[in-house]
Amino acid sequence: MSTINTAYQDLCSRHQRLHRLNHLQAIASWDQSANMPPKGNEARSLALAEMGGLLHELSTDPALAQLLDAAEAETLGDVEKANLREMRRAWRDANALPQALVEAKSLASSRCEHAWRSQRPANDWPGHLENLREVVRLAREEARLLAESSGLSLYDALLDRYEPGMRSADVDRVFGDLRQWLPGLIRAVQDRQASETTIEPVGPFPQAAQRALGLDAMKLLGFDFDGGRLDESAHPFCGGVPEDVRMTTRYREDTFLPSLTGTMHETGHGRYEQGLRRDWLGQPIANARSMGLHESQSLSFEMQLGSHPAFAQLLSPLVIKHLGDQPAFTPGNLQRLMTRVAPGFIRVDADEVTYPAHVILRYEIERPLIEGQIECEDIPALWDAKMQELLGIDTRGNYRNGCMQDVHWSAGLFGYFPCYTLGAMYAAQFFAAMRRETPELDARIAAGELNLVFDWLRDRVWTQGSRWTTPELVQRASGEPLNPAHFKAHLQARYLG
Amino acid sequence: MSTINTAYQDLCSRHQRLHRLNHLQAIASWDQSANMPPKGNEARSLALAEMGGLLHELSTDPALAQLLDAAEAETLGDVEKANLREMRRAWRDANALPQALVEAKSLASSRCEHAWRSQRPANDWPGHLENLREVVRLAREEARLLAESSGLSLYDALLDRYEPGMRSADVDRVFGDLRQWLPGLIRAVQDRQASETTIEPVGPFPQAAQRALGLDAMKLLGFDFDGGRLDESAHPFCGGVPEDVRMTTRYREDTFLPSLTGTMHETGHGRYEQGLRRDWLGQPIANARSMGLHESQSLSFEMQLGSHPAFAQLLSPLVIKHLGDQPAFTPGNLQRLMTRVAPGFIRVDADEVTYPAHVILRYEIERPLIEGQIECEDIPALWDAKMQELLGIDTRGNYRNGCMQDVHWSAGLFGYFPCYTLGAMYAAQFFAAMRRETPELDARIAAGELNLVFDWLRDRVWTQGSRWTTPELVQRASGEPLNPAHFKAHLQARYLG
Repeated sequence: MSTINTAYQDLCSRHQRLHRLNHLQAIASWDQSANMPPKGNEARSLALAEMGGLLHELSTDPALAQLLDAAEAETLGDVEKANLREMRRAWRDANALPQALVEAKSLASSRCEHAWRSQRPANDWPGHLENLREVVRLAREEARLLAESSGLSLYDALLDRYEPGMRSADVDRVFGDLRQWLPGLIRAVQDRQASETTIEPVGPFPQAAQRALGLDAMKLLGFDFDGGRLDESAHPFCGGVPEDVRMTTRYREDTFLPSLTGTMHETGHGRYEQGLRRDWLGQPIANARSMGLHESQSLSFEMQLGSHPAFAQLLSPLVIKHLGDQPAFTPGNLQRLMTRVAPGFIRVDADEVTYPAHVILRYEIERPLIEGQIECEDIPALWDAKMQELLGIDTRGNYRNGCMQDVHWSAGLFGYFPCYTLGAMYAAQFFAAMRRETPELDARIAAGELNLVFDWLRDRVWTQGSRWTTPELVQRASGEPLNPAHFKAHLQARYLG
Repeated sequence: MSTINTAYQDLCSRHQRLHRLNHLQAIASWDQSANMPPKGNEARSLALAEMGGLLHELSTDPALAQLLDAAEAETLGDVEKANLREMRRAWRDANALPQALVEAKSLASSRCEHAWRSQRPANDWPGHLENLREVVRLAREEARLLAESSGLSLYDALLDRYEPGMRSADVDRVFGDLRQWLPGLIRAVQDRQASETTIEPVGPFPQAAQRALGLDAMKLLGFDFDGGRLDESAHPFCGGVPEDVRMTTRYREDTFLPSLTGTMHETGHGRYEQGLRRDWLGQPIANARSMGLHESQSLSFEMQLGSHPAFAQLLSPLVIKHLGDQPAFTPGNLQRLMTRVAPGFIRVDADEVTYPAHVILRYEIERPLIEGQIECEDIPALWDAKMQELLGIDTRGNYRNGCMQDVHWSAGLFGYFPCYTLGAMYAAQFFAAMRRETPELDARIAAGELNLVFDWLRDRVWTQGSRWTTPELVQRASGEPLNPAHFKAHLQARYLG
């Protein structure tokens, strides 16, 4: 071992250890959602909390501060420097907040979220408001401390945890553009689709057949089953570890598209994890870069590729194989079913075109809320006005399907929402770059040559890990900074082309 | 908190922590056998090893020695004293062996076991012998150190890890008795069964139907599905944690009895874990007492109850429900199928009557091997002689199905084999005690009143945890020390009655 970077080597060993212990945490968390019987929950929660405490202890070991300083004075290559930057970032995140605040926020958000589970169906905004105020108070305190330690503005300090390097000035720029043309585009798409004929699939669709269809779709999308699985859970997610990816879905026998498209979505998350560089694994630089980039991969698989008219030709035979032949299962009809646009109350049920409206609205509320320009009491009126403006929907008095629909704010997750739409934009920008480089891309997809897409994403995104900040990675991958014109062009081509 | 037992309280907190961290280890280990895809193995093994090292570190913290001494001087109740005895035992086990020996033995047994996987099918005894010698050398060193720290003899020091309080003098006494009458009993049962007519079941038996049958059998046997699951693995076992028991089985479509009886067997292990006292959980006193007692519970479920002629009347309708009606599925025929006796080469395939012969043979070889009276080279000749004597079987030159059939010695597990037959004896002794207390026991079982059995086992075994040593528990539960006459009476009544 070289003697010139022993502090760096020591840090690497410590991160390797954290990676291994996190592995157990990740598998036990997946199991909690996918397998665990109810009576196991208390012991599991205590075990995960014990391990969480231990990991926090290891991440805040006072020796780390000296090691980081010493390593920064050592002679390191570019990759090592990037890894050290990520180590510093992880250390700052773990140390920025006093334990008392972390615990108070965890307690307040648990309480708020727990009560929300019954307050939402009861449409009880005043009850929810009381708990939410405390969560927001603590989130503002958190933002203040993170801003102090990072030198960022209040909201940016929160956003940076999910999307490193992204600033609200950038978000303002791209969301500002988006909100100009989106409402008009939604109306135009609706007008056009009003004259289309779409045949409804006829159920029921047995669960075992849906599972077999999902597995075949994952195979088509290149998921490596020697390094991962598909199981079931109440709320689908992609968990596990890069070496062993655990995807989940859920089934309803009256409809099959939600599970199928959800499975394609999670497959994008899964392949990102499976595609991370093996020789970096265990070090912070190996990790998937950000929430927005993760979402860009799931949307590349679900939307850019999965809802592509050419891809429908590959999917249709699989649907027929597992669910039987129906008039609804022709490629054209299947694609029409997967691209139907209709403004609605609920974000998680929204289509590709109306989804960004839900995100813009939340961003335009949570940012001033964190910055102290508005208070929790102001949320419903803002929600109603923006839903009317962006989607033409009346949400007055309908808190349940309005500002009480998401768990994020109850859980104290401010700064997360923009990532969903940033991901959609990154995905559109990546596919635009692919088309510039390979003009016959769409014909190749129609011919089933999907490796073109997978190889591009592997080279430009998956294997880059956390080598760069998000804006750097986007620039390097696509040759330009985040540019919402590609998302607009994608929606126009797919929905009005 | 009382100030008179603060050292004891500190020890309790530390064991609580170990219990929680062990939880993650147990679930990740179960997952490794039941779910994990092949590419996950390396990272999983590293994660489990990292956690193993951490748990060892916590269990050998030098502060523990002072705390144990201080706690022993504190004022404690009887339960606390028993818990402290178990803490001392855990501490002695963790500290008795130098890390270098633990690692050398782990390495040697991994190498031996790995090579054995291909040497066994190749019948390569000379190749195996070379690796086995090193494992035995290290196991003898281990026995020497454990004997020094415990004051026990060499073999007893190993046996005590699996069966606390059990001594080879006791094993000699009960196995010595057993080996007198067992060969004659086996011949008598074979003569009798030669004149019986048994109808063979006709397969195939679809896996899904077998799984449904196994789940119904588990329900009949009172398994709590809110606190556990049944899955599949290559080698069936009962894992997980008391709060969330993870049983596994395996299926072959040409036969259903191995999976069904295996499931009933694991259900016994599972209910023991589910029946441990909740208010003690997290402390050493809560743990299942020993390997032999664990086996007594699995055999209570599989053999004492599961192969009981009256139980066959409860099982028969379930078999018919899931596998269809067949002449082979009458209660009488089903029970004949489950109690067929035939001497064979392989221990794990052996019936209830011949199984103890396999165990006696191994005990009579491994004990002198550990004590240095014989060497590895002597094993085959002893094996051949004892197989001839006990089961009338010729194993000369057949190492594969002779002394190379088990993984235990390759894995360095000496002192474990007796537990299988001690378990069978405990189970027979427990059921004899139940019959003394409830003379109409068999009629009650026939009437489906199984709670009588479950309640007895819960009161006398499950809820006792590690409150007593094994001999103490057996005495308290059944009113006498381990007595092989009950096992003999059980076999005579069931197979010659």
